[in-house]
Formats: sequence, C-alpha cells, structure tokens
Amino acid sequence: MAGEKMETKLRGKIMEAVRAVKETNPMAGSVTNTVTMNFVANAQLAVGGSAAMVFLPDEGEFLVSAGNAVYCNAGTLLPISRETLPRTAKAAFEAGKVCVLDPVGIGIGSLRTEILIAVKPYKPKIIRGNASEIIALRNLWKIESSIFANKARGVDSTESVDEAAEAAVELARYTGGAVAVSGASDLVTNGIGIVRAPGGSEMMTRVTGSGCSLGGVIAVYACVTDPFTAAVTGTLVYNLAGAKAAKKAEGPGTFYSKFLDELYLATDEEIAACSFTVTEV
Amino acid sequence: MAGEKMETKLRGKIMEAVRAVKETNPMAGSVTNTVTMNFVANAQLAVGGSAAMVFLPDEGEFLVSAGNAVYCNAGTLLPISRETLPRTAKAAFEAGKVCVLDPVGIGIGSLRTEILIAVKPYKPKIIRGNASEIIALRNLWKIESSIFANKARGVDSTESVDEAAEAAVELARYTGGAVAVSGASDLVTNGIGIVRAPGGSEMMTRVTGSGCSLGGVIAVYACVTDPFTAAVTGTLVYNLAGAKAAKKAEGPGTFYSKFLDELYLATDEEIAACSFTVTEV
Amino acid sequence: MAGEKMETKLRGKIMEAVRAVKETNPMAGSVTNTVTMNFVANAQLAVGGSAAMVFLPDEGEFLVSAGNAVYCNAGTLLPISRETLPRTAKAAFEAGKVCVLDPVGIGIGSLRTEILIAVKPYKPKIIRGNASEIIALRNLWKIESSIFANKARGVDSTESVDEAAEAAVELARYTGGAVAVSGASDLVTNGIGIVRAPGGSEMMTRVTGSGCSLGGVIAVYACVTDPFTAAVTGTLVYNLAGAKAAKKAEGPGTFYSKFLDELYLATDEEIAACSFTVTEV
Repeated sequence: MAGEKMETKLRGKIMEAVRAVKETNPMAGSVTNTVTMNFVANAQLAVGGSAAMVFLPDEGEFLVSAGNAVYCNAGTLLPISRETLPRTAKAAFEAGKVCVLDPVGIGIGSLRTEILIAVKPYKPKIIRGNASEIIALRNLWKIESSIFANKARGVDSTESVDEAAEAAVELARYTGGAVAVSGASDLVTNGIGIVRAPGGSEMMTRVTGSGCSLGGVIAVYACVTDPFTAAVTGTLVYNLAGAKAAKKAEGPGTFYSKFLDELYLATDEEIAACSFTVTEV
Repeated sequence: MAGEKMETKLRGKIMEAVRAVKETNPMAGSVTNTVTMNFVANAQLAVGGSAAMVFLPDEGEFLVSAGNAVYCNAGTLLPISRETLPRTAKAAFEAGKVCVLDPVGIGIGSLRTEILIAVKPYKPKIIRGNASEIIALRNLWKIESSIFANKARGVDSTESVDEAAEAAVELARYTGGAVAVSGASDLVTNGIGIVRAPGGSEMMTRVTGSGCSLGGVIAVYACVTDPFTAAVTGTLVYNLAGAKAAKKAEGPGTFYSKFLDELYLATDEEIAACSFTVTEV
Repeated sequence: MAGEKMETKLRGKIMEAVRAVKETNPMAGSVTNTVTMNFVANAQLAVGGSAAMVFLPDEGEFLVSAGNAVYCNAGTLLPISRETLPRTAKAAFEAGKVCVLDPVGIGIGSLRTEILIAVKPYKPKIIRGNASEIIALRNLWKIESSIFANKARGVDSTESVDEAAEAAVELARYTGGAVAVSGASDLVTNGIGIVRAPGGSEMMTRVTGSGCSLGGVIAVYACVTDPFTAAVTGTLVYNLAGAKAAKKAEGPGTFYSKFLDELYLATDEEIAACSFTVTEV
C-alpha cells in the first residue's frame, strides 16, 4: 500500500474514531503514576472518554474486563506495582484487549526494570514514550538491562525522535501493534508504515504529564479503533490542541487550562485534517 | 414539619454554616484517592476550610482527633487502606464526629468491597456518591456483594438520581445522618426530608474529582453544622459555582480554574438563596 | 560582612542562579507527597528545571546520583517511606549533595516522627517549612517528640515567621546549610545572616502546595548554586510570581494558573531586584 493511499484511509479512520469516542464515552482504565494521573483522567474526559485509576492487581484486571483498553504507566512505582502492572498487562493480552504501555523513567531503579521485563511476553499492543524511553525499552527487551541502566537521567528525553525510529519499528514488529514516539515532531509506526506528525508546542515540555496523558487518551481511542489509528489520533489531537492552546497562553499555567479546553473542543474534521505524512518502512 | 417551614429553617442554617467556615477556617482531614486529592484540598481551601491528607492508620485517627469531620474516599486503594479507612471511620464514630464516606468505584476489586463492609458498623454520618454508588452501597450493606459486583462499570454513574432516592433514604435512616446523591439534579436526605437541588453544569462531568471534592467540602461544612445542613450547603455551593464557572469557561480546563474561583467568591447569601425544594419522605 | 555588602553579593549570585537554571535545565528529583506533587513538578519545569518523582528507596538514591539536589517531603507517608526518605537523605549527605527537607505535617503520626528523627544525622542542607513546622523540627531534634506531638493541628501554620527565627538559625547552624521559613513575610537564614523578604500574596494560602512546590523549586536552584542563595532565590521568585498573579486572578483557581505563568516569565533581573533585607544574626 502506497503512503498516499494509506494516508487517505487513515484520515477516514481517524474521523470515525473521534466520533465514536464522543458518542460512546468509552472507559479506558489506568494503572499510572501519581504525579500526572489527574491530568491523564482530565484529558481522557476532555476527548469524550471515561477514566478510572487503580493500584491493586485484581482492580487492574477488573479494569481490563470493564473496557476495551487499559493504560499502564511505569512511573512512581510502589511495592504493589510489582504485581499490578504485569497482571494488568497479562489480562489485556489474554483477553485480546489493548494495553498501552508507557515505560516512563525506564532505567531508574531495579523494580522498574523487573516490571518492564515482566510485561514483555504480554506484547502490549501500543507503546508510547519519548525517544530515550523507546530506545531504552528496545534495548531492555533485547539485551542486558545493566548496560544502559546507567544512562538514564530522569524522565525527560535526551534523544531525538528520529534516533528512535528504528527502535520503534522493531518494537511494533515484536508486539504486532503500534508504537508512538513523542517529541518536537512525533512518530507513530505499526512496523509497516510510519506516520510523522509535526506541530504541537514547545510549551508541552513545560507541563508535567503531557506524555502520560497522551498515553491515556490513546487508550481511550483504542477502545473504538485499531492500535495504529488510536496512536495516530491521540498524537494528532495533542498536536492540534497544543498549537491552539499555545497561541492563547501566557505561560505553562494558562497553557494547561487552555490545552484541556482545546482537547474538548477539537472536532473529528479538525483532527483528521492535521498535518502528517505516511511512509512505508 | 412541613416542607416550606423546613426550607426556611434550612436556608438560615446554610447561611450560618457558610459564615462559620469563612470565620473559623476549620480543618477537615482526608483519607482519599490520589487522582483527585489535589482538587479536594483546593476546594476545601477555596470555601474557607483547611485540608490535610494521609494514608496511614494512626494518621487517619489523628486527623479525626484534630478536627470535627473527616473525609473517607474509597478510590485508588493501597494495601494499607485495609486498615486506614476502617480505623478512621471507627475513630470518627467513637468520637461522635462526622465521617463523610464516598464509596467511589464500589464493585471494583475485593479490597474495596471488604473495606466498605468493614465501615458499615461505624455508620458514617454523611454518605456522598453518584446514583450508581448509592444504590450499590445500599445493596452491599443488605445483601451479598457478589450479586452486584459484576454490575460496576467504572467510576461514573449509570443510574439516575431519582432511581437512587429510595436507597439514599434507607442509608440515611440506617446511619442516622445524611446522604447526598450527585447528578444532573442533586438529592440530599436525612431520612425524613428530601432536598432536591437542580443546577450545576454538565461541564462538571468533564472534570475528574467533581464528586470527590464535593465530599471534602461537605466535610468542611460538617465541622461547623449538622450533617444534613452540611451536605445541602456543599451541594448548593457546587451548583452555584458550577453554573457561574460554566458561563465563563470555554472548556473543562478553564472551567476547573473558574470553578475554584467561584467556590472562593460565593457568599453566604448567594449560597442560601440557591434553588432547591424540600419534601417530606 | 555587613548586611549591605552581603545583600549586594547575594543579588549577584541570585541572578547567576536564575540564568544557570534556564540554561542548563537541571533535574532535581523528589520524594514527595501525592497531594501536591503535580504542582511541585510543574513549578520546577516553569522556572526552567526538570522533575522526577519516586517512592522507592533505590529510586530515591538514583535521583540523588542523577542530579545535584533532591527534594524530600514528609507528607502523605506510605509504609515504604520509612526506608525511602532516610535512605535518600543519607545518599545526598554521603555524596555531598543538597537534600531539601520539608517536614510537612510534623507531629501527625508515629512514622513521620520516626522518619524525621532518622534523617537528623544526614543534616539536610536546606530545610523549608512554615513557622510551626520549623519550630517543631527544632524541638524534635532536641527534645522528646511526645511533648509537642499533641500540638500539631494539621498542615497549616499556627505560628508567625518571627517566632520561628530562632529555631531557623539553630537548625541552620546544626546542618551547616540554610533554612527557609515561609509565611506572610518570609525568612531565610544560613545561621550567619538572615534574609527577610516581604511580599507574595495571601492567595498562596488558598492554593494547596505553595510551600511544597517552593521546596521543589529551591531544590532546582540548589543544583546550580549554594544552599543559602538557592533558598533565597526560590523565596523571591515565589513572592514575585505570587504578587503578579494575584493582580490578574479572580480567585485561587485562576491564581494557580497565572502563578505558574509568572514563575515561567520571571527574569533573572526581576528576581534579583525583589525586595529583601539582610541582617546579621
């Protein structure tokens, strides 16, 4: 399938996904970090979805059974996360539902490494991260974790999106799903095609949880469409809302408020018309 | 007491409660979920109260001893919640203080069911929830939990407020306190009278924590007045602030900011003049 | 060194610190409470820093190794906090890095007392709190905790900043670092000089996390300058942003948004020109 034809088809599916979420209010549960979970929930509500957050293993499994997709984020781990994240990812895998994995902070601490290795067999159908995280996850799933554990710096990316393209394609081929790399210009791949979407706003790097909440929004779209379309749709609505909010904001505080407004106001047509290119791998 | 006489008396008590909070800055501690605890605290501060949040059992007991009311919310449970929520509710019961119970997410996971059964003997003087939660709590406290556990969907309501009226009255008669049901039109009962308050804004369903933070605000008012008046006062100030904020907001992000502003700006006279009706059960 | 000379030198160092943060985007990790951690991270990003929050012991140690300063806050303790907070403070002490200790809620619960006693030997190079907390910490580190445990009320201060001046000086001399006391008028001391900074806004007492997020911002500045300058710089930018935001806000909701904007917009020259006096102890 040529890039152009793939693009046209994709724009149609994006419009359908945006409409389906607004009409059916799908619930995408989350096992996610305490820093940004409020933003995740508010972003999910803003685009028309419903949210529920839990920390306990059987509750993570319940959320899988109650929705079509679940968001799993490796931030602010607690001792119980050792059980909750793998069991939630496993439940999604076994039920044929979408788990959106966000390997935030990969390389920080031994439990995070243990958990991210533990979820590998459950092939999360969507993986979302910044460039550094996507590269690190590819490495973790192929080689000894001790090699790059020392390279982690914090939770912000130190690599470019283009440097992560190869890792993203490899991960997508492994899971059979989609991988979204967030950055100044975003990249989404299903291992076959690569969508590159410019735009958004530099201001998004000044608000904590821009990436996490995108993961939650992608999970909402994954309740109503395929993983690749869901990841592209979430990425585009974030670029659209980010660009519009930045024009109205004076700083990161008002940007945050206006960004949620714009997520809420964005229409199916606006989102599907956002700038992106499709190429074959 | 006829509905009209009850209404006049109630409006007077509401004015007194609003004034007393603004003058005495009462502290209502919370054991609450991590998704919305920031909103809970900010709403409590906005109406003139003071906030403190804890997770540990002896700290929950301390908060009971340090204030006149405490807010207990069953969201985002952790293993330690098994001890903390029942011990906090018990401490309030034994001290003759108000525990505001919010059975959020009832039906999700075994620990939540266990905890909600465990607090039953401590008859929380105020119960706040959406229609689905109030009905589910009435059922849990009367019949086998396994019957309705499968009906839970997430944390958003799937039943109407009117459908919950009977359950609310039964719960209020059991506890001897008040029950508040939040929805498009709100209902508060003490088992004798029923207050119905229209208003608020549809936008409140697009902001996570509207219900939780109302529970925290009701706890603040319960520091200075009886449970029924506290529940009605909180409900009215939420309807007032919600309606005013919705007029100024472009979406859920600016709505949230303006909602906190309006909670802060609402006067005793404005709140006591809000639309509501009183009927006898 | 006379107060005036000390002041001139300090203003120069403040300008350098503000510029260095904006240029180098330093990461100051946090072990902090779940109520306000989103505000802490957003404030750190707004001034030009980077944030990362963790709960587990080895992750706290990792954050010490990955940055030049770490923020340790005693709020919303979990069972694992018993290990994480002391080990993080110890790692900072042994690495000669700055730990910013925020003894929030001191007096509430036995674990908090245990933890705050445990970190004493690690002499956190910056201590930040309201007047009540600073006085209580001085007392805890000298006398039996049981004496004042009953005096705690919640998390808001019941003492004035001036009443805490003596305690602040004693603590600073013990740690060899700086102590910042937040209030209507703020005080920062290194045990030798005392900076008094008026200003800010009463509205900051209506937004939860004003103090916590100041602690996180001070940690960001401590990545690039000495503890005393860092504590003064954070205090001044908070007063500046608070005063400017209060003029544009209608209540605590819009104040919060505009406060983050003003943190972001504040220039090195504006911050260094903020009103303060220096006196020798």
